[in-house]
Amino acid sequence: MLKKIAVDAMGGDNSPEVEVAGAVGACRRWGCQVILVGDTPRVQQELAKHDIGGLHIELHHASDVISMHDSPSAVRRKKDSSIRVAFDLVKSGSATAVVSAGNSGAIMAAGMLVCGRINGVERPAIGTSLPNLNDQTMVLDMGANVDCKPSHLYQFALMGSLYVEHHLGKSRPRVGLLSNGAEEKKGNELTREAHLLLKEAPLNYGGYVEGGDVYNGSVDVVVCDGFVGNVLLKVSEGLAVAIGTMLKREIENRFWARVGYLLSRPAFNSFKNKINPAEYGGAPLLGIAGAGIVCHGSSDPVAMSIAIRQAGEYAQSGFFERLATVFQQ
Amino acid sequence: MLKKIAVDAMGGDNSPEVEVAGAVGACRRWGCQVILVGDTPRVQQELAKHDIGGLHIELHHASDVISMHDSPSAVRRKKDSSIRVAFDLVKSGSATAVVSAGNSGAIMAAGMLVCGRINGVERPAIGTSLPNLNDQTMVLDMGANVDCKPSHLYQFALMGSLYVEHHLGKSRPRVGLLSNGAEEKKGNELTREAHLLLKEAPLNYGGYVEGGDVYNGSVDVVVCDGFVGNVLLKVSEGLAVAIGTMLKREIENRFWARVGYLLSRPAFNSFKNKINPAEYGGAPLLGIAGAGIVCHGSSDPVAMSIAIRQAGEYAQSGFFERLATVFQQ
Repeated sequence: MLKKIAVDAMGGDNSPEVEVAGAVGACRRWGCQVILVGDTPRVQQELAKHDIGGLHIELHHASDVISMHDSPSAVRRKKDSSIRVAFDLVKSGSATAVVSAGNSGAIMAAGMLVCGRINGVERPAIGTSLPNLNDQTMVLDMGANVDCKPSHLYQFALMGSLYVEHHLGKSRPRVGLLSNGAEEKKGNELTREAHLLLKEAPLNYGGYVEGGDVYNGSVDVVVCDGFVGNVLLKVSEGLAVAIGTMLKREIENRFWARVGYLLSRPAFNSFKNKINPAEYGGAPLLGIAGAGIVCHGSSDPVAMSIAIRQAGEYAQSGFFERLATVFQQ
Repeated sequence: MLKKIAVDAMGGDNSPEVEVAGAVGACRRWGCQVILVGDTPRVQQELAKHDIGGLHIELHHASDVISMHDSPSAVRRKKDSSIRVAFDLVKSGSATAVVSAGNSGAIMAAGMLVCGRINGVERPAIGTSLPNLNDQTMVLDMGANVDCKPSHLYQFALMGSLYVEHHLGKSRPRVGLLSNGAEEKKGNELTREAHLLLKEAPLNYGGYVEGGDVYNGSVDVVVCDGFVGNVLLKVSEGLAVAIGTMLKREIENRFWARVGYLLSRPAFNSFKNKINPAEYGGAPLLGIAGAGIVCHGSSDPVAMSIAIRQAGEYAQSGFFERLATVFQQ
């Protein structure tokens, strides 16, 4: 079975170092097969730092790069950019999935341009898994769909639920629509119309959820537009950093608290690992006719290797066949 | 000078116990003058538990209550509800401001109905102060304005900036418009138009900010619609609770971490006090022609007394005169 994953070696904040190390890790730990797409001399230079004996790692040259500052439309112009070439490999059947830590708008645009949308999907979305008290919650859209119609949110719910079912193995995932209150009369124009559509959907839909439900484990999938999704994610990251910084200041000011922190450190480290985004993998592109996983630009090699394994599983999970069936109905 | 604050004694989750204790605290600590508005026998029963010698506390009867489950429009029907009567006291000049821990939509509706809007204000807003790394950030709207026009966001920015200037004593508060990225090309239809208006505003406006900027201290005022504001607040509360719960689990599982926690406890307690919402006071109604402060439904007596002091300062800060001048231009 085809298992090669095309890894955009140039997209992230620390490319190609992290991508190469992540690929080596994924191949060694899980027997993945990787095609590193990018500037071959630079990639080879990084690869030389690793022992890759017995590992299936290929190189594929791409002369151009899309930076974090490029607009998504740059993928049209930059035909030989690493992210676009990575999707070309999927389109031609040489690879089964793409992983990139690059500009998420550009990754989405490249996937759309090269592989196209799955029939019936109006707007592809990006789903991000966040830790909750029991497990994890997938929130979508985290992508570029800032101005959505009710039918878009409806489709996000279908795609998110199917992903969680296939990839995380949960049956009948609980789906919630993010709103400013749980009661039906709450919401804005967009959510009120989307709520009416979702009530009739073939989903385990429980109605409106509030921001707090993202983290309390009461739902598996939270649906919102990409503007709200981005605010949600950035507020969460910013608050977590602020809590850590403020707590550190308080501890550093007190001798016994410093001693106490040293004793508690294994607990803090275990907590940090549990909420480490890397553990939850990258964010799948949903609705593109090709498997793509978006990683955080600052991903480390462990996050990258987990995302590479995840990309292979995503491509082979049966998700695409099910999605095509659901959207043909 | 008139200093009486009308306190809605019936609105909160623990009414009238918390309101009465908060009023007693505010009168004793800061010499406030309070009118407790609500079911007089119940309020008297609570008052009997306190020593109120020398304190200026009056009672004013109101036979009805608006519950958390009532819709804001219930204030039209419930003419003798405690929140509506509290605003009646401001309108008639018997009180200078209102404090309530009740249904925020109903508090806003009662303020609108009884006192009306300040001339020129299209939509009143609710502003909430959140702790940041250095100080605090005011986020608005946290109220019921879920579907906003660009001019509404523009006015929220003016009102939020004036409040921070007058009430928190900051000159030229830094104002940011919440978006899904800092670059000008980001944002949704609403923020892009509001951004154009704000660039021309008589404000210290720095353009788009992201969710993370709410907590890093880079701005004093963050403007968004009430839907996004609610999500931001609820996500923050939910994440803070989840972090606390997860960390507690990790600590409780380890003997030495439990010992360490005991040693570090003063640091944790100091941290908790710094992020305690009570310390930041209640949320002002902005744009209503009468001073109103909304408290969290689950406020404790300390939060309530701080809000009562805040309400008096709000009414007398010169904010209303300045706002009237700015909006007449």
